[in-house]
Amino acid sequence: LLAPAELDHLCVVLVATRNPLNLGAAARAMSNFGFLHLRVVNPYAVAFRQARSAVGASELLSSAEEFQSVAEAVADCQLVVGTTAVGARELHHPLKRLEEGARGIRKHLGRKRGPGRVALLFGSEKVGLSNHDLSYCHWLMRIPTREQHRSMNLGQAVAVCLYEVIRDGKIKSKARSEKAGSATSAALDQITALLVEALHGSPYLKPQRRASTEEKLRRMVRRLNLSVSDGEVWLGMLRQIVWTVKANAKASR
Amino acid sequence: LLAPAELDHLCVVLVATRNPLNLGAAARAMSNFGFLHLRVVNPYAVAFRQARSAVGASELLSSAEEFQSVAEAVADCQLVVGTTAVGARELHHPLKRLEEGARGIRKHLGRKRGPGRVALLFGSEKVGLSNHDLSYCHWLMRIPTREQHRSMNLGQAVAVCLYEVIRDGKIKSKARSEKAGSATSAALDQITALLVEALHGSPYLKPQRRASTEEKLRRMVRRLNLSVSDGEVWLGMLRQIVWTVKANAKASR
Repeated sequence: LLAPAELDHLCVVLVATRNPLNLGAAARAMSNFGFLHLRVVNPYAVAFRQARSAVGASELLSSAEEFQSVAEAVADCQLVVGTTAVGARELHHPLKRLEEGARGIRKHLGRKRGPGRVALLFGSEKVGLSNHDLSYCHWLMRIPTREQHRSMNLGQAVAVCLYEVIRDGKIKSKARSEKAGSATSAALDQITALLVEALHGSPYLKPQRRASTEEKLRRMVRRLNLSVSDGEVWLGMLRQIVWTVKANAKASR
Repeated sequence: LLAPAELDHLCVVLVATRNPLNLGAAARAMSNFGFLHLRVVNPYAVAFRQARSAVGASELLSSAEEFQSVAEAVADCQLVVGTTAVGARELHHPLKRLEEGARGIRKHLGRKRGPGRVALLFGSEKVGLSNHDLSYCHWLMRIPTREQHRSMNLGQAVAVCLYEVIRDGKIKSKARSEKAGSATSAALDQITALLVEALHGSPYLKPQRRASTEEKLRRMVRRLNLSVSDGEVWLGMLRQIVWTVKANAKASR
């Protein structure tokens, strides 16, 4: 897991973006995941102005740096990674799936001798990055979309890539550490006993099969995985039901 | 990794979505990652109509099923997962980080006795899922956004969640299987020799330090990690340079 100071060394570079909504969406995803440095190369002037002045436009967007060329935008970066939706097109670059590529980026950001500066490039909505843009990249990365529909929306692509960089691969299922909060066996037995009592005299509980039915219920109650508090609620409800059943039985006698 | 037939058992349920662009974006991300079943609960009628008739609106959007309530939308599902941007708010549900939650979803979709049907719920842009909506969920999931900016754009949240479900955690770095395509040591030595020749007589190559400079160059050339074909290009260029250097030397004599 990377520290915020390490994330600080990655900048997102949007090249020739056309749609102000996409600029805004990219900035929002960056902020969501803690990447605060946006660089734009030759954005459509109107789009950039609109995005910056949009209601709720982020600080991030207003502090975005503007460049005339990819070369200038990535000049201070030690690792330049391009994104592409292309699969088999003859690329002159190594192409990594996002899972692998993000690992390389994390390694670069988290290295011991201090983080290297990384640029992550996204091309325009229509044509992506040009071959000229790509020639500044060390390698390329693609999101594993399906072949029949490769190309992602720009803002969504930015979100998915940045998520993969910050995701925590070591998160374990909390599994049964919640077990501590589970109802005790005694509580489960009380619940089973009350169920049996509530069913008393019903055709469900045939006297000759009483033992096996009780076992069945006991197992079923355990499968409910009740918490302590849910166990108490069930106990209370069943007590009420048993009380009602008995009252009715008395009244009908 | 899940097969397409298994992805087929997950449906995305959008509850009370307001913005037609978000409906479109959600549908696009679903198609990108191979999830083709969209259900909408009480969308704003105009938004839904607009999204469906938008240029490039997908088949997926036109085949979306409409429901009047969350109960109806998830009736045939065995696992119902809600999404939330909320962190510490007293939730009455187990809350899992996306990395862990998606693992649970994958397990459910890929189980041996046949996939269970899963519903993944997203609330409206403004208020998310209501407590009533959440009461139909087995557990909740949240994308690990930073505390200062928790809430994601709807289309981006859908993209990130679905990506995590299909991502391949077992992808290894291709590491040096590309080694096979690397230039041979002989080629690297030729390159080193040509560099030395090109530098002949220059102050860089002082006669008394020639051996150590050659070693330095040899190590440096190896650090370039040249491929076979790049090695050939370098050899060709250096031969040209050496030729030019010699021709100039002759001419100036």
